[in-house]
Order: sequence, then structure tokens, then C-alpha cells
Amino acid sequence: MKVYKIPEATVMRLSIYSRFLHQLLEDEVNTVASGDIASGVGVSSAQVRKDLAYFGEFGTRGVGYKVEELYGHLMKILGLDQNWNVIIIGAGKLGSALALYKGFEDRGFKVTSILDVDNKRIMKQIGDVTVESLDLLEERVREQGIKIGVVTVPAAAAQDVTDQLVAAGVKAILNFSPRVIKVPNDVILRNVDLSVNLEVLSFNLALQK
Amino acid sequence: MKVYKIPEATVMRLSIYSRFLHQLLEDEVNTVASGDIASGVGVSSAQVRKDLAYFGEFGTRGVGYKVEELYGHLMKILGLDQNWNVIIIGAGKLGSALALYKGFEDRGFKVTSILDVDNKRIMKQIGDVTVESLDLLEERVREQGIKIGVVTVPAAAAQDVTDQLVAAGVKAILNFSPRVIKVPNDVILRNVDLSVNLEVLSFNLALQK
Repeated sequence: MKVYKIPEATVMRLSIYSRFLHQLLEDEVNTVASGDIASGVGVSSAQVRKDLAYFGEFGTRGVGYKVEELYGHLMKILGLDQNWNVIIIGAGKLGSALALYKGFEDRGFKVTSILDVDNKRIMKQIGDVTVESLDLLEERVREQGIKIGVVTVPAAAAQDVTDQLVAAGVKAILNFSPRVIKVPNDVILRNVDLSVNLEVLSFNLALQK
Repeated sequence: MKVYKIPEATVMRLSIYSRFLHQLLEDEVNTVASGDIASGVGVSSAQVRKDLAYFGEFGTRGVGYKVEELYGHLMKILGLDQNWNVIIIGAGKLGSALALYKGFEDRGFKVTSILDVDNKRIMKQIGDVTVESLDLLEERVREQGIKIGVVTVPAAAAQDVTDQLVAAGVKAILNFSPRVIKVPNDVILRNVDLSVNLEVLSFNLALQK
């Protein structure tokens, strides 16, 4: 499948639609109108139709979408018709919290490796995984077929760890460290700044004044 | 200031612009064109102009924006011209990681209170804050003037904790628990699902195949 320039906001909404459809499947609902999806997740139905239109024709006018079919399409588009092994670098509080985060496994992301440089953390058990030395990075990436790395190390170490992930063959990196890091063009980088979530709240609180 | 229906994606971009402007200020850059902001943060310059246009006229045609002025405007729009005390409910791994997260304090969010029901966690020291009993919720919210609450409790407890936050006078809630929770109309709710970040990666990885 070849798709150009899908806005990131669309991808994030597809993710939300797929969760809503999953809920409908559990409730044994067979068909759904774009308006139902829209009101279920809190966007306009025009937005739902526009987002889905990026990927071809799914629904039938006047009938709506077949829930199971659309759900399957969305999961495939999101790359979630397969499982992904994930490596976390940094076994501090955030790394540990992410390793134990239920939401990842529900969507097919399995944390199979957690590495650190700190001897006090190495050999610690986090869920099913034992923290190991960063020296094992290349070996673990290779044997576990890992494409996705998560960086939760302190800012000063973030670029170095990222370079090592890239050298080991990781193709997509989620960076939780506050440092701006660089990756080659063929590697996907996503920076997560958790405070943006609080700023959406403070923005709305400031509006109310 | 009265502003209607600002898309959330715009608010999140304003946050990113403000960080970029802060960096320019540190580098002692005085004026900036929308194109510079655009390439600095990776969006189109039309997008930058459109986002800023929601809030009135800032720049001068052909000259661009005064960095300090625009930065000040954006911080005010985001509600970041003041500090916000934040209460975290749930002192598990995620709650602890968030309490220690440097990015919050950099943007004016100060975690002043962390509560839990688990006696093994109560009295634990997390950064500057001592974990206290959930029984103190109302008291802490009142004396610390808290408007923002962060929920990191297990799914089964999320709605109950949310109700308690609302009853205590909290006006905005960031929910990290996987449970869909309900709040009254005058309370702002934001659900954070960390796996969406991984799905943006798997979407792009799936495209490359």
C-alpha cells in the first residue's frame, strides 16, 4: 500500500476510531454510520469520512460501514495486523512504567527487552523482562527482530543511545527524553513531551477566566 | 479573551511553537518569519500563520514576528503566564515517573501533592513531595489552590478518584488510566493513551513495507 502525506492527526484519529470499533465488536454491533463513529469519539462525521477517504472506499451510502471489516482495515493501516517487539533503553521510573503499561500489549506492542547502563538496575525484574546491560543492544535487537525502540534515558545520553539503536537496525524511535535528537532519514522519530497534555488543560482553563 | 473552537491540534502546535521561540530567545534572535518557525518545527508556514490567526494579528508583513512578543502571547494563550499546582492520584510507577518528570516544571506545572490508598506507598518520598493518603484530597486541593489533577490509578478506581477530584473542586483532569471516565460539563478531561505514540510509528513502518 502506498499512501502519501497522511497528517499525523489523522493517524491518531484512526487509532481512536479503531478502539471505538473494537468496543462495538464486543457489543456485537454489525454496522455503523460515520455519524455514530463521530459522536462516539467526539469529532464531526465529515472528519470521519475525510480521514477514512485517504485509504479508499470503505462504507456503503445509506448503510454505513461493516464494523468488523472497517476495524480490520484500520488495524492493518495502523500496522497492527501484526505484533511488534519493542526495546526500552533506560530502566528508570518512566522506562519501568512504560514497560508495565497495559495499553501497549493490548495493541500488539510487546516490550521484550529493557536495557540500562546502571548496575543497580541491571538484573532487576520488570514484569516479564529482566533489565540487562546496554552492551547487549545489538544482540537483542537482532535476535528479537526489533524495529521499535523507546528512549527514556537522561537528556545527556539520548543522542548516543539513539545512534546505537540506529546502528543496531532499529527503524522507529519514540523519544521521551527532553533532548532534540537526530536520526537518519530512513528512521522514523517521534518525540513525546508529556507536558503538552497538561498545556491543553491550562489552555482551556485560561479560556474560562 | 474569548476564543471559540480552537482545534486541539492547534493548541498542541502552539505549545511546540512556544518551545521553538524560547530556544530562539536563548540564542538572542529578535525577529522570526513564519517560514522559519515552520521549518524549525516541521510544519508548513501556511499552517503557522493559520494557527496564529486564531488569536489575532501578531506579525508584520515582510518583517515577521518579534520573538519575545510572540513568545509572550503564546505563553499567555496557553495559560502558561502563571504557575499551576498539580495533584497526582496514584503513586505507582507511572505516577512517580510523572511526579519526577522535568518537562512539567519547565513549563510552570508543579506537582505539589501525590496521594495514594496503599499504605506501602504513603510516606514515600518522590522528589520534593511525600506521598500522602487519598483521604487528604479535599484538604490539599483547597490549601494548594489546585485546578489540575492527574489520574494514574488502576482502571477500576479511576471513576471513583475522578469523582473525588471533581467534588474537591478540580477543574481539569488528565487521565492516564485505560478506563473511559465521565466528568461534568464544566470540567475539562483529557485522556492520554501512550500507545497512540507507538501506533504512529507502526503506521509509518507498515507504509514502508
